[in-house]
Amino acid sequence: MTQTLQIERANNLKDKPDVSTVKFGTVFTDYMFTNKYTPEYGWSEPSILPYQNLQLSPSCQALHYGQSVFEGLKAYKNGEDVLLFRPDENFSRMNKSLSRLSMPEINEENALNALYELIKLERDWVPDGPGQSLYIRPFVFADEPYLGVRPSETYQFNIILSPVAGYYGAQLSPTSIYVEDDFVRAVRGGVGFAKASGNYAGSLLAQKKANELGYEQVLWLDGVEQKYIEEVGSMNIFFIRDGELITPKLNGSILPGITRKSIIQLAEYKGYTVKEEAIHIDTLAEDLESGRITEVFGAGTAVVVSPVGKLNIHGVDYIVNDNQVGPAAQELYDDLTDIQYGRIEDPFGWVVKL
Amino acid sequence: MTQTLQIERANNLKDKPDVSTVKFGTVFTDYMFTNKYTPEYGWSEPSILPYQNLQLSPSCQALHYGQSVFEGLKAYKNGEDVLLFRPDENFSRMNKSLSRLSMPEINEENALNALYELIKLERDWVPDGPGQSLYIRPFVFADEPYLGVRPSETYQFNIILSPVAGYYGAQLSPTSIYVEDDFVRAVRGGVGFAKASGNYAGSLLAQKKANELGYEQVLWLDGVEQKYIEEVGSMNIFFIRDGELITPKLNGSILPGITRKSIIQLAEYKGYTVKEEAIHIDTLAEDLESGRITEVFGAGTAVVVSPVGKLNIHGVDYIVNDNQVGPAAQELYDDLTDIQYGRIEDPFGWVVKL
Repeated sequence: MTQTLQIERANNLKDKPDVSTVKFGTVFTDYMFTNKYTPEYGWSEPSILPYQNLQLSPSCQALHYGQSVFEGLKAYKNGEDVLLFRPDENFSRMNKSLSRLSMPEINEENALNALYELIKLERDWVPDGPGQSLYIRPFVFADEPYLGVRPSETYQFNIILSPVAGYYGAQLSPTSIYVEDDFVRAVRGGVGFAKASGNYAGSLLAQKKANELGYEQVLWLDGVEQKYIEEVGSMNIFFIRDGELITPKLNGSILPGITRKSIIQLAEYKGYTVKEEAIHIDTLAEDLESGRITEVFGAGTAVVVSPVGKLNIHGVDYIVNDNQVGPAAQELYDDLTDIQYGRIEDPFGWVVKL
Repeated sequence: MTQTLQIERANNLKDKPDVSTVKFGTVFTDYMFTNKYTPEYGWSEPSILPYQNLQLSPSCQALHYGQSVFEGLKAYKNGEDVLLFRPDENFSRMNKSLSRLSMPEINEENALNALYELIKLERDWVPDGPGQSLYIRPFVFADEPYLGVRPSETYQFNIILSPVAGYYGAQLSPTSIYVEDDFVRAVRGGVGFAKASGNYAGSLLAQKKANELGYEQVLWLDGVEQKYIEEVGSMNIFFIRDGELITPKLNGSILPGITRKSIIQLAEYKGYTVKEEAIHIDTLAEDLESGRITEVFGAGTAVVVSPVGKLNIHGVDYIVNDNQVGPAAQELYDDLTDIQYGRIEDPFGWVVKL
């Protein structure tokens, strides 16, 4: 069932910035999508409105009890075309997040259609410089003014858009990672697989510690034994071991990244042997030491692929591939971004052209 | 350093409701306290304003990354006096929550003074019926309009007030509890000890499951082994075992309840032997079976003391004290509420009279 989308026009449009100098996530476009949930009508009154502040009660449930989930994806410009990368996957994952936090699921088809309408309306905001894109942030939160601890009765589903510069300049550059032994991000039985707001707030202190120790990002271990590799900050993690592509198996506390899933499919398509397995941190250290592991890289929407040049494990620094970008990371990055920007044919049916 | 508190008067005051029929957390008073944080000025411009909606950017950090913590306490009426119970403990704990989520700590003395001024202004909103009180909700959240994952640069600290009926009618009544074996609330190294918004959203699904199975609340086990007792929904838990008062030892994933702490101090004062220890769920089952444990009760701000009449452990129901209110729960409830309402002398210096 497709719902009728109301569009309220803005009286004035903003000046578009020079995206190459824009800081990520600080500039927003002229319009936003919004949709309200009530127990009586479910998700109703979908509309596109001028980008504007939210009016929330001080007792708004999301601010007190954290019922708030989000997604992130990008729109890319290719000539006159605007391309989206696997947007159905984002709304599918959003529903898994919503379900875990006892929030009402959205209609994925309606959400996709609303996104397409919003992007078409904001087509001129999709930047076309190298590596640039329009970052898309769908999010749902509880807005009932009520202080009791139970699922909220009302919600808002919004989509906002922000033009962003490329993550890298002319070429990929390696990052450094600190393996966190004390702080824990998530544990089985918890909400680690969901893009729930609370997961991020809880991760900031470890990120600060890593930065103070001179590393750019945190590699999390599992919450039960603190021995198995889970994920990096806002990325999943991959290794090239004996020429094969290895990544931690999803276990309920790892975020099921859409870039992760795409890298696995792309690598298999290109002839890599791909293995998802439990990776013990001590085994990783041995394999880095012995040279079995020749590349390490992260994968996520923001970076696509992020080569790792240095890992600190239990206080020991391991240099990977001479702190240079490795061939697998470069190849997978090139192919995936070429598909996203429509520069090569998409053999997977991932790209939606608007 | 005491800051000057600005007060903006409301043009019209609300009609006060019949508190005996008010649903918890739905009615708010005429005024709220607010204080803004910026990197330049720290916490500045503390003010009391008419209760009003918040104007937040759709990219407000708290909604996306969950930097949001809260506290809860109550004001009680005794004749012309208004009494607060250990408010310093709430602001002290709030600072521990803030620190864990990489949020700026508040000045506890300024916060207490602001609370006192707000309560004095809203004195007529403190209800005086049996068991009634004015619920106080201090909360801090990140309000910077920015989508990058890092600690927000700006925050709001607000206090809102809501008159509430007594949790019980004329007398205490026992609750039922389901011990959760699958879902996990928190794990060591995480944020379980903080009153962080995300902890609550993550708990709702287990609460729903318990309700569907016919139990009122969830008893959480530890996140590592799923064998040791942690806490109940929004309460800490206590047992009378061989006449002694037992409660799980704080371990980083259990919320350090102020009612918990007060019950321990009060029980010791009254001659109980009190033990804080790791309590294995199987040992608990054995001790319920053998009759060593004669009482179970929860303790928290909302309920003060909540006797537990039935516990489901691994699928088996254990009836406690014939599903009747036990003498220790009744005694500690009576004494603690008598202190809170100023009906007996406070030997601990807990009560602040305004």
